[in-house]
Amino acid sequence: MAARLNVALVGAGLMGSFHAETLAHRLPRARLATIVDANEAAARALIDQLELDDTRYEPDAATAFADASIQAVAIATPARFHAELIVAAAQAGKPVFCEKPLSHSLAEADRAIEAVAVAGTFLQIGFQRRFDRGFQRARQAVEDGTLGPVHLVRSITRDPAVPRPEGPLPWAIFLETMIHDFDVLRWLAGSEPTEVSAMGASIGWGDDPASGLLDTAVCTIRFANGALGTSDVSFNGAFGYDVRAEVFGPGGMAAVGDGRDDSASFYTAAGVTRAHSAWFKPMFGEAYARELEHFVECARTGTTPAVTGKDGRESLRMALAAIESTRTGRSTPLPG
Amino acid sequence: MAARLNVALVGAGLMGSFHAETLAHRLPRARLATIVDANEAAARALIDQLELDDTRYEPDAATAFADASIQAVAIATPARFHAELIVAAAQAGKPVFCEKPLSHSLAEADRAIEAVAVAGTFLQIGFQRRFDRGFQRARQAVEDGTLGPVHLVRSITRDPAVPRPEGPLPWAIFLETMIHDFDVLRWLAGSEPTEVSAMGASIGWGDDPASGLLDTAVCTIRFANGALGTSDVSFNGAFGYDVRAEVFGPGGMAAVGDGRDDSASFYTAAGVTRAHSAWFKPMFGEAYARELEHFVECARTGTTPAVTGKDGRESLRMALAAIESTRTGRSTPLPG
Amino acid sequence: MAARLNVALVGAGLMGSFHAETLAHRLPRARLATIVDANEAAARALIDQLELDDTRYEPDAATAFADASIQAVAIATPARFHAELIVAAAQAGKPVFCEKPLSHSLAEADRAIEAVAVAGTFLQIGFQRRFDRGFQRARQAVEDGTLGPVHLVRSITRDPAVPRPEGPLPWAIFLETMIHDFDVLRWLAGSEPTEVSAMGASIGWGDDPASGLLDTAVCTIRFANGALGTSDVSFNGAFGYDVRAEVFGPGGMAAVGDGRDDSASFYTAAGVTRAHSAWFKPMFGEAYARELEHFVECARTGTTPAVTGKDGRESLRMALAAIESTRTGRSTPLPG
Amino acid sequence: MAARLNVALVGAGLMGSFHAETLAHRLPRARLATIVDANEAAARALIDQLELDDTRYEPDAATAFADASIQAVAIATPARFHAELIVAAAQAGKPVFCEKPLSHSLAEADRAIEAVAVAGTFLQIGFQRRFDRGFQRARQAVEDGTLGPVHLVRSITRDPAVPRPEGPLPWAIFLETMIHDFDVLRWLAGSEPTEVSAMGASIGWGDDPASGLLDTAVCTIRFANGALGTSDVSFNGAFGYDVRAEVFGPGGMAAVGDGRDDSASFYTAAGVTRAHSAWFKPMFGEAYARELEHFVECARTGTTPAVTGKDGRESLRMALAAIESTRTGRSTPLPG
Repeated sequence: MAARLNVALVGAGLMGSFHAETLAHRLPRARLATIVDANEAAARALIDQLELDDTRYEPDAATAFADASIQAVAIATPARFHAELIVAAAQAGKPVFCEKPLSHSLAEADRAIEAVAVAGTFLQIGFQRRFDRGFQRARQAVEDGTLGPVHLVRSITRDPAVPRPEGPLPWAIFLETMIHDFDVLRWLAGSEPTEVSAMGASIGWGDDPASGLLDTAVCTIRFANGALGTSDVSFNGAFGYDVRAEVFGPGGMAAVGDGRDDSASFYTAAGVTRAHSAWFKPMFGEAYARELEHFVECARTGTTPAVTGKDGRESLRMALAAIESTRTGRSTPLPG
Repeated sequence: MAARLNVALVGAGLMGSFHAETLAHRLPRARLATIVDANEAAARALIDQLELDDTRYEPDAATAFADASIQAVAIATPARFHAELIVAAAQAGKPVFCEKPLSHSLAEADRAIEAVAVAGTFLQIGFQRRFDRGFQRARQAVEDGTLGPVHLVRSITRDPAVPRPEGPLPWAIFLETMIHDFDVLRWLAGSEPTEVSAMGASIGWGDDPASGLLDTAVCTIRFANGALGTSDVSFNGAFGYDVRAEVFGPGGMAAVGDGRDDSASFYTAAGVTRAHSAWFKPMFGEAYARELEHFVECARTGTTPAVTGKDGRESLRMALAAIESTRTGRSTPLPG
Repeated sequence: MAARLNVALVGAGLMGSFHAETLAHRLPRARLATIVDANEAAARALIDQLELDDTRYEPDAATAFADASIQAVAIATPARFHAELIVAAAQAGKPVFCEKPLSHSLAEADRAIEAVAVAGTFLQIGFQRRFDRGFQRARQAVEDGTLGPVHLVRSITRDPAVPRPEGPLPWAIFLETMIHDFDVLRWLAGSEPTEVSAMGASIGWGDDPASGLLDTAVCTIRFANGALGTSDVSFNGAFGYDVRAEVFGPGGMAAVGDGRDDSASFYTAAGVTRAHSAWFKPMFGEAYARELEHFVECARTGTTPAVTGKDGRESLRMALAAIESTRTGRSTPLPG
Repeated sequence: MAARLNVALVGAGLMGSFHAETLAHRLPRARLATIVDANEAAARALIDQLELDDTRYEPDAATAFADASIQAVAIATPARFHAELIVAAAQAGKPVFCEKPLSHSLAEADRAIEAVAVAGTFLQIGFQRRFDRGFQRARQAVEDGTLGPVHLVRSITRDPAVPRPEGPLPWAIFLETMIHDFDVLRWLAGSEPTEVSAMGASIGWGDDPASGLLDTAVCTIRFANGALGTSDVSFNGAFGYDVRAEVFGPGGMAAVGDGRDDSASFYTAAGVTRAHSAWFKPMFGEAYARELEHFVECARTGTTPAVTGKDGRESLRMALAAIESTRTGRSTPLPG
């Protein structure tokens, strides 16, 4: 009889709440032992809402990490806390799952990666698209040679239009959102970027683009194996959440992400209509569960996960290069 | 803090195993307390495989039903045991979930329904298609008047080709498989059948059709509200599991069931290809979870479920009428 | 330099006008030499509208058929005139294209077929679905064995809702509309029917079904090779014109008829919407041109066409059997 | 009775042959009076193949343009001859249809536009995508405000892999192919470009990218109204010809170009497969006919066409800017 892996979750916000539900109720081999959040009310509300009768609240991450019964740590705080928390968890000897982006700073990313290496644990970054079955089949068509060497790759994100957060984060479109696309592009291209060129705009928000408060961005990337990539992101999706990718080679193309919400179509005088995924749970609910299942399995078996700190670091490099390119109006080289 | 509902599951075969996994690991408010099966090895293997450390094995259903800690019963045995088990569970005062078909005999179906009524508990039949989000949206378009009065309705099933079971059940194509379609047709038509006409064949199997060992069948139904329906079923699906429905009225049509396995498409010299659902779990995994979630919620709150013994009985009437029609070569009237 | 084939068209109504346009402007090898119609105003209006400067009007079919410069005849009158016109054209030695249905009477159909045989010309029936590239690819998958022996076949038609014609024709749903489906079913099954069972209703129109003024019908057919078929037809299509077919065997299924009007999809807060074919020209415009091109080519080369009088006769037999079945409530045997 | 417009076609190559067929056989109001080509054998073979009994061959364009019976000119030569021919035809007072690109040189483009203006005739450029019904519906959604102000626009082309032509044209990927996408992007964005950034590669061909012999390119564009655009082009399409576009605003998105070849889908053990358009005729055959129909109608009525020399010039500016960007590694500003 297998015991459940005791996980401490840091962060009870949007993603933290979703991971809490997955860890508590969808993964037979995990137990959500502890929720850490400075906001005690939020954490306790989450515990109540999910009817978690054996999950503790703990205000302090260090205390939770020091708890010998805790076997793994999942981090879902804002990005500015990631590196520090990863270092602390690693020093406590725990394997760490951390939401994307790994960090907004390469130096901090390196510090986190180093701490994990020194501690001999591991770090998995929350690029859930890699755990979507459709995305995985696209990647498989690259790996098994069906498509031949990759020539073109595309990844897009259109987030549903929501009021802009207060105190918005400059350059979030690259650092927080297109970071997903950067990871997908690297993964599908099977190669590292050598050059990044980007343009950004603040069309719906109407901000000065120099502020970094962009709601629209496009990017092109050259990869070491010759492949070219594009990405576009918008925060003004009227029809929901739109995430798609394509990978194209001389053998053909894989396209993924149809946005279908269910299998029903309606035929009326207005035409043929189907529902579109409103937000990330219908589209990636299963992928989020599978990434945490993978983390739990790696933690139980001492295996290195499929998405590591290096993936977090390289996608961050691409985001920083894209920011530089929007500022300089020229492509940013990424030395190998 | 909500306690979990203690459920006793009877039957550890194909569907029982799947329901066990759902009850044990996917429903936060349920606890799979007991598994009953005459085949102890099968039940224990299931308990091991699902890593169930607080689920008991119990050889005898009556004992399980008599256990005061058991709050609800789920039945997933062959159909010939259904009525008797329902009666026993009802007499023990438990709410009952029972896989389709309710029975192969109207008299037994009536006995089961009567016992439940007398006991004041309830009976839910496992027509999971009603819990698929796509099917529900189609039904919604009927209910909200989008489609207008129903004129035509269609439901089909094509099971993946598998070796025919040993000791095959005569007329299973109507009693065990098209029974799903009969339920969907009634539900989407929003009316009761008045006339059923059917043809059957044993094309791949090559049996004498008079034996009832059919692998192919078509059926037409007239409903009291004037609507006409069709269904076709085959056991020889080369491309997996195909379940679809359409409902058509003067306002338009809802079509449901696209069989997509994931969101990836592959473009090669052979054309554009996507994967098709191989069997029922990819297509209806979520619907199966939602039907049991509904059962658990009804049991916790004392609510009558959305699919009752009456639905089991009426679909059985249609199956029996279809069998008669294939024998007589004329349509079978179903008096109101 | 190839001369154009001089064609006389009889009938300047809905289908006649459409065939006139095709013969005059879409087929390089045909010349629309003469239009015959008792209604001179209609014929002359058509000639004007299509800007036909070398097309004659002729009130009398016999005169047109006797004209030695006329090399082929196309008939697009109401069905009650078909047989007589075919006989006359055949006796004048002309190859004949005739719109479906060949006739409403088996005796008349036989008379027309016989006259053509005696004259040594040929007769092509206007089952244009057979010339649609999608339908042809489905048939090809039957012929080349991809699907294996046919088990199930389906064909449907939903005509757009239009005011019912004055002086409506009883049983038109079978004789004029489902006749298309009967032809497709025979063609895709690759076999002749042995048994037909049908139900009809007058749901939107509200007529007495015994009058034959049906707006809704379903039908099941058994074929000599064992295959079973279904068809459903409605005259109340809110979303346009819907024609589809499926053919299923142990090797898989071909499905045809997606109703797409163009390649655009619109993603809005209401979901994802595409336009649906409003009526038969967008869906089958190319097929209609190809069937006449085939006719012209056969006439130029003396080849027997792919769809002959026999196909017209057998589909009529199925329609008559379906009418009988709706009257008797039992399936109608069709002796081989 | 309307007379047909006498058109002289210059160029009997790939596109010239296709336009010849359209002018001769698909447009009731046009007559292909003359074919001009230095290659007499090619022109005469085309006349034979299309069975054109009243089309003249003429070796010299000037002679054809001087012919008073010629009412309009269509040019389908290599681009290096376009400007000179346009000037000559304009000076002869004829309206001109010219295949894309207008020219490879802005100076020549200006000279052609000027000559047309001076002559008071008109010039239509062969951007046939604008005449595709799907593309037109996408544009309509921009014009009618459904999508709101445009934020993102995408256009792609993937040509089927074919042996590279001998004496390949440097930068053809931008000048000859992505020129289509540039036109679509301007048209869908409803705005002029202010900045173009591009990357190119020669992945399959293996040439030095500095030679301009690219088989792969990506491009991003900023428009004056704030919209951002992307395009990608490959010459290595294994699955046929792939042309798609998307336009996205706060009201939603229109996506066009599904590549369907017909309406059939095949369900087998390998999944669900449909055919993809192999090359441009299945996808754009109707659009090519409609653009020439538009030209003929404009010539008959003296109307300015919907796609003019200005559109040819602006798309050329974008192509030249993209070439410069691939050379400099920075975005090329396009002053308004």
